[in-house]
Amino acid sequence: MTSQELFENIKRKGSFLCVGLDTDINKIPQFLLETTDPIFAFNKEIIDATHKFTVAYKPNMAFYESMGVSGWNSLEKTVNYIRYNYPDIFIIADAKRGDIGNTSNMYAKAFFDAMEFDAVTVAPYMGEDSVKPFMTYVDKWVILLALTSNKGAADFQYVSEDGEKLFEKVIKSSKAWGNEENLMYVVGATKAEKLQEIRSIIPNHFLLVPGVGAQGGSLKEVAKNGLNDKCGLLVNSSRGIIYASSEQDFAQKAGEAAKEVQQEMAGLLKAKGLL
Amino acid sequence: MTSQELFENIKRKGSFLCVGLDTDINKIPQFLLETTDPIFAFNKEIIDATHKFTVAYKPNMAFYESMGVSGWNSLEKTVNYIRYNYPDIFIIADAKRGDIGNTSNMYAKAFFDAMEFDAVTVAPYMGEDSVKPFMTYVDKWVILLALTSNKGAADFQYVSEDGEKLFEKVIKSSKAWGNEENLMYVVGATKAEKLQEIRSIIPNHFLLVPGVGAQGGSLKEVAKNGLNDKCGLLVNSSRGIIYASSEQDFAQKAGEAAKEVQQEMAGLLKAKGLL
Repeated sequence: MTSQELFENIKRKGSFLCVGLDTDINKIPQFLLETTDPIFAFNKEIIDATHKFTVAYKPNMAFYESMGVSGWNSLEKTVNYIRYNYPDIFIIADAKRGDIGNTSNMYAKAFFDAMEFDAVTVAPYMGEDSVKPFMTYVDKWVILLALTSNKGAADFQYVSEDGEKLFEKVIKSSKAWGNEENLMYVVGATKAEKLQEIRSIIPNHFLLVPGVGAQGGSLKEVAKNGLNDKCGLLVNSSRGIIYASSEQDFAQKAGEAAKEVQQEMAGLLKAKGLL
Repeated sequence: MTSQELFENIKRKGSFLCVGLDTDINKIPQFLLETTDPIFAFNKEIIDATHKFTVAYKPNMAFYESMGVSGWNSLEKTVNYIRYNYPDIFIIADAKRGDIGNTSNMYAKAFFDAMEFDAVTVAPYMGEDSVKPFMTYVDKWVILLALTSNKGAADFQYVSEDGEKLFEKVIKSSKAWGNEENLMYVVGATKAEKLQEIRSIIPNHFLLVPGVGAQGGSLKEVAKNGLNDKCGLLVNSSRGIIYASSEQDFAQKAGEAAKEVQQEMAGLLKAKGLL
């Protein structure tokens, strides 16, 4: 998907929401455990109920891997289900991968060939040759970790050389490796005040912002500091939407929660003159 | 596995070799493609031929993920095969994972519960709460990226604040998160001259050293700068061993290649007074 196509979807839906599919067998409604593939059954219902209000889904690899082969199978079914039923949706593998070139090539194959993801999150520690193999696919995206939303972000991401912090260096170095059509950045919403600073380095790149909702970030603050003239934001919510209810009405409640976020987003897009 | 048990295995086998199972469907002998699970068939033969000369195997997750569900299935069979047939072998998931605590917990479940790995490689970018969930399992290990063997290592790992480089800060910070019984470090062999410096910070921790062989590192240099009084090293070789031949004799040739490395290692252990 190109950035223009993504922007068109955002305008059509009045939403820059990404729904995180952190599907946990211990948190889904009990009655689904009787189905042959409870993880996929849950995802399918959630997707059907929320797709109108979201432009992206982000399955979190860890949750599927924790289930072994059957989890990987549920993941493939989920990606295929989205791809064939809602082809305008942007699908992100939240995988935080990154290894020597030869190995990153294989990860790229896993997410872009073996499965039809549009993007994969990548960790920058190993540098350029660990990131570039993901950029060789047309209309596919790297979403590189810059500033994350967790407490441990403070441990290394602020290490500063000559006044330049590591997360800034990651952004400045990496933007030369790709372009605005194959590279986005993860910027944690709990650091909304940093968004302005980051926007001054990369005014046009899309940013994936996790941490709104359960992790405490404010959507209004994120929009204020992060929106650009092509939106330029994907804001993720996982637990706040997919676990809105643990009863029979879980999908309906997830749809309502997604709609609520979408409506706030539509307001913010309008205020910015983008709708 | 405890560090003492690992050291006992190293002494008994006269080897600190780790064989990397970077099993690529395009590189294994053609005739194996007729079997129902060529990846597992290859691994099984390689393991049977090399286990006497190695103390560890390191399946590289990317190669299995690139095959989708069937790859994940071959991986599980490989881990189970090693676990039940050669229970003294240390099994490393080369996964380079690391995410917010909640998600790292799920990755730990994937590698330590759903599969019986002894260790998982972890990337440090997201800090303490992304690493610690892997340390809550008894006798299981985090192998944290410190200084990697690839060209891109120079991009961020040498960022220096007040004279302290990022990879040094990663080691110094993280050694307080765990101990010598649950934390090892990845130190690339192409940076053998750095090993001495790293040994001065962590004299007792085990180091996993990739990059000997295809990536150009020298075993003698690594041993000179990295061995401690309990060995303290696992040196990985992947392509140089598992692809020693692409003919019918591939397993035999892999065994011979592993034996050759083992004999050099035994000499180095003797010279150090450890055998």
